[in-house]
Amino acid sequence: MTTLVFGHTAPDTDSTGSPIIWAWYLNEIKGEAAKPVLLGEPNTEAAFVLKRWNLDKPEIISDVADDQPVVIVDTNNPAELPANVNGADIRGIIDHHRLVAGLQTRGPIDIRIEPLACTATIMWKMIGKDMAQMPEGVKGAMLSCILSDTLEFRSPTTTQEDKAIAYDLAEQLGVDIGDYAAEMFAAKSDVSAFSDAELLRMDSKEFELPGTKFRVSVLETTAPKMVLDRKDSLMKSMETVAAEDGVDQVLLFVVDILNEEATLLVPNDLVKGLAEKSFDATVEGDTVVLPGVMSRKKQIIPNLKL
Amino acid sequence: MTTLVFGHTAPDTDSTGSPIIWAWYLNEIKGEAAKPVLLGEPNTEAAFVLKRWNLDKPEIISDVADDQPVVIVDTNNPAELPANVNGADIRGIIDHHRLVAGLQTRGPIDIRIEPLACTATIMWKMIGKDMAQMPEGVKGAMLSCILSDTLEFRSPTTTQEDKAIAYDLAEQLGVDIGDYAAEMFAAKSDVSAFSDAELLRMDSKEFELPGTKFRVSVLETTAPKMVLDRKDSLMKSMETVAAEDGVDQVLLFVVDILNEEATLLVPNDLVKGLAEKSFDATVEGDTVVLPGVMSRKKQIIPNLKL
Repeated sequence: MTTLVFGHTAPDTDSTGSPIIWAWYLNEIKGEAAKPVLLGEPNTEAAFVLKRWNLDKPEIISDVADDQPVVIVDTNNPAELPANVNGADIRGIIDHHRLVAGLQTRGPIDIRIEPLACTATIMWKMIGKDMAQMPEGVKGAMLSCILSDTLEFRSPTTTQEDKAIAYDLAEQLGVDIGDYAAEMFAAKSDVSAFSDAELLRMDSKEFELPGTKFRVSVLETTAPKMVLDRKDSLMKSMETVAAEDGVDQVLLFVVDILNEEATLLVPNDLVKGLAEKSFDATVEGDTVVLPGVMSRKKQIIPNLKL
Repeated sequence: MTTLVFGHTAPDTDSTGSPIIWAWYLNEIKGEAAKPVLLGEPNTEAAFVLKRWNLDKPEIISDVADDQPVVIVDTNNPAELPANVNGADIRGIIDHHRLVAGLQTRGPIDIRIEPLACTATIMWKMIGKDMAQMPEGVKGAMLSCILSDTLEFRSPTTTQEDKAIAYDLAEQLGVDIGDYAAEMFAAKSDVSAFSDAELLRMDSKEFELPGTKFRVSVLETTAPKMVLDRKDSLMKSMETVAAEDGVDQVLLFVVDILNEEATLLVPNDLVKGLAEKSFDATVEGDTVVLPGVMSRKKQIIPNLKL
């Protein structure tokens, strides 16, 4: 049976590109039938990357059947995976997020989690000398994953390994990193087609402090004004999204990639108190700028306090 | 703070040797202060190995403090780890068992799980060229872990990698694998000092079928008669151990390493039915021989049915 390779729901560039990379590796190098799939429509940056490298958009699936062989990449969190994921036959996990107690496997399998910025970087290490056989399009996906997850090396999650591998790939592909990243980020920044609720759910993780559940949403953009001009309706939409998703509060951090800062929307006193305690900020009005904050994983989630 | 490296409770050779190997690697190669510790008295084989290679017996700990940096090896199951393990700062996991939903980490960390017979084999791959600097005693521990977990390559969990690495180590150490494994298994087989309850808990994993909880115990031995002569009192002790440990039934498989078969004790109709359904066996009397059965992971647990 063909193994399905997928990342998390609301696929970003890493969760779109890494399944393509790994399915290529399983098919062409390991001789195991595999197919990349998506758990939703890719975001605008990921859609740009597919087009730029002439890659077919993977099929979108809504769930997995019992006993379906699967490889999971870029997450290990069942909340971001198909409802029946633990009914599937999980054959491998490649990820760079913290381990949450959730997935179970039937036997011992290959699991590789490393504290690197990007899943594709781990795959580069695992593929090793077989990288020589990787076609240009798949290499393009790999470079794109790294530039996306590191925000062109600006994010504090960036490691020397991510950076060195991206430069190596860019040289092989004859790509200017600065120009190409700018095109990617412009694609990601065009959020005009999305509703407020879609924006709030686009890049979002649930997180719980004692007594309060959050949806911690991030929008990485080179055009923060485009999002902040919609702040009134976004704040209104937070209440509906929170109620629908069973959380107490949605937090929206608008990350300004070029200026390396985040703007947090402050719709109420709960978020005001959280912003002041978590980021040592003084809040006046309904937004607060957090200088240097770019990474949910490294800078937002670990600091959240009520 | 010094990182503590430990395996599972009721330490066997892999859970005694692998912490020693990894603490050596962290201290001497990575320059990170680390110390191997045990979660209980090592079994007789592991004690023999420590003595044979002049290795200090690691300190035995009963729990870990909040925020204590730890690396966990040879398990990822909280039921086999200190009660406060999720309060510790888990820095790494190296294992060869199925993933159970249990451990949580604070951030992304290095996790490496592979379907090899032995944790030490995975470590050999991770240590790579730095193996050249490993002292003889630590190499001896590594060889011992592989021979123990593979039952000298007889277990169906054995892979070509486990085997090749063991032969390489034996050559470097000038050890005859057959002779040395026989000494190890003789040490493991001397169970005269243990009470019935200790024998039942010595190498045991909890496993649940719908409605029934089991303790699946295995005794690997070159002298099965020594255990089977005690079968009446062992079967009596099963009831006490089951009650004390909150399970419905203890199963004891006495694995005859040299004849490559297991004898299951059959104290009641529940176990009789289970033996017949799980292993297609015909049970007469209070024991049943299961030809070829040597591995709980590959042959016992996956087949259990009621």
